[in-house]
Amino acid sequence: MQVKILGSAAGGGFPQWNCACSNCARLRAGTLRSRARSQTQLAISSTSNQWYLLGASPDLPTQLAAAPDLCPSAESPKSPIAGVILTSADVDSVMGLLHLREFETFTIFSTPSVRRILQDENSLFRVLERARPPVAWRDLIPHQRITLDASNPSSPSASIQIIPIATHGSYPDYVSPELRSTLSADEASLALRIEANGNAFFFAPALAVNAASHAALNDARASDVALLDGTFWTDDELQSTHRSNKTAREIGHLPLSGRDGLLAHFDSSKKCRKILIHINNTNPILDEDSAEHRAVREAGWEIAYDGMTIDL
Amino acid sequence: MQVKILGSAAGGGFPQWNCACSNCARLRAGTLRSRARSQTQLAISSTSNQWYLLGASPDLPTQLAAAPDLCPSAESPKSPIAGVILTSADVDSVMGLLHLREFETFTIFSTPSVRRILQDENSLFRVLERARPPVAWRDLIPHQRITLDASNPSSPSASIQIIPIATHGSYPDYVSPELRSTLSADEASLALRIEANGNAFFFAPALAVNAASHAALNDARASDVALLDGTFWTDDELQSTHRSNKTAREIGHLPLSGRDGLLAHFDSSKKCRKILIHINNTNPILDEDSAEHRAVREAGWEIAYDGMTIDL
Repeated sequence: MQVKILGSAAGGGFPQWNCACSNCARLRAGTLRSRARSQTQLAISSTSNQWYLLGASPDLPTQLAAAPDLCPSAESPKSPIAGVILTSADVDSVMGLLHLREFETFTIFSTPSVRRILQDENSLFRVLERARPPVAWRDLIPHQRITLDASNPSSPSASIQIIPIATHGSYPDYVSPELRSTLSADEASLALRIEANGNAFFFAPALAVNAASHAALNDARASDVALLDGTFWTDDELQSTHRSNKTAREIGHLPLSGRDGLLAHFDSSKKCRKILIHINNTNPILDEDSAEHRAVREAGWEIAYDGMTIDL
Repeated sequence: MQVKILGSAAGGGFPQWNCACSNCARLRAGTLRSRARSQTQLAISSTSNQWYLLGASPDLPTQLAAAPDLCPSAESPKSPIAGVILTSADVDSVMGLLHLREFETFTIFSTPSVRRILQDENSLFRVLERARPPVAWRDLIPHQRITLDASNPSSPSASIQIIPIATHGSYPDYVSPELRSTLSADEASLALRIEANGNAFFFAPALAVNAASHAALNDARASDVALLDGTFWTDDELQSTHRSNKTAREIGHLPLSGRDGLLAHFDSSKKCRKILIHINNTNPILDEDSAEHRAVREAGWEIAYDGMTIDL
């Protein structure tokens, strides 16, 4: 299985269009040792000619253009993108579906609740029905394993299996109160355990502070590679950088540092390869000269960047 | 007045993510004399520190990042974007509003009908209400002049005036039949005449084949600079490139060539500076070695590109 990290930042990207925090201002001025990052987007494949997207980032067109394997060509004119797997209804996870409106047929995998948010109160997504046949939807039910590209006769043993794991995050603020009251709590946000060729890969761009997310960390530790929520360094990061009055925990992200932070949940001796992703523009780990960046690396973690690839 | 052309392609951009037409395949392979173009996006200003966006393109983040004047900095930490003027509810005209969701206050100018499409049946746009104060909406009524940045005391004479002109295009296919039946025909699509410092600039990314669009061409000819619908070269372009079964005219675009095409509506002796914009990936004028490209240039037209600027 190949995993391409097409985007590694949290919502808004890095730098963010309206932000002049220390990280964003210095990156624009060329005085920060770091690199620009687009909003979190992964692509996975076990066959090289058929790819699945994890999430649908707002930055998808530039992300796809930067990955020739994901583009059609004169020799192979059909888009190699077979499907999109959604982990939540957050804008930075679903907006990219609108980029994929150009009369192309593929499959969207989501929980029934996420699907209802997009189909029942957002008519824009009807643009996906213009393809012939229209884009197909398939349900992701927490803890029910599904198989991707099972119909690929050339590599049946390499088929990808996905186990969705409920992390009990919140539904986005934009969802109407009427619809929200009818949605299942365990369908709001998912982590994904992805298996192929006997290897396991774990993806959780949002880990909340709750029992379900804590339990998901057990699955992360048991995987060969885990890409985990690296949004914030401290709980009060948005307040101290004047971006918002809310804490990291209030908006559904376990911070990295501190006694109960994400890093403290992992023993450095474990064999799992640990990579932080969905990194917010305010996070000091983006500054490669910072103490926080050093602390993360010394704890045995990698920091995802756009263009990173993983072979499993 | 400064006009920045941040994007110059039609919906989907050039190359388009799922397209292997001759233009897209050759551009990716590096064998076409042309350049990549993002989806049509303009920014205008009469003050240099306050900008208005015309349209809200799906490619807005990379377009803004490429224009340092439109980004905040350590010295000037407030975003210089004061407002967004929408010409239709097409996905490639409104999707960029979702990129602007990061708690920033600005003003959206649209017809009441376009506003209802976004507010009444697309809950995603509620993300714009998170700013303090929330994003404000202001009505554009066909043929009613409005003044932008009138409150700018440093340059009252340089304030920008906008006259919206109804072009009677169609509402997008995604709009529900229930809502569609209540919308005004003259609020579906606008051309904009924009005046500042005694100069007039005309912008019409979509010109349909109807009396209103033909009348708008009179306003275009009477302007100093006109950026006009360059989507398709021929009426059957989408059919001959296997992209769709519809004609250019059926989807609301007057083609460039032919006896009644856009080019035939302009006399080469006219003083108006004429520029084509909103160019579809299939359009042969994108190939700088093509006969069609040469014909356009010989008829006195320019072809917009990303990064082009106009001073008026």
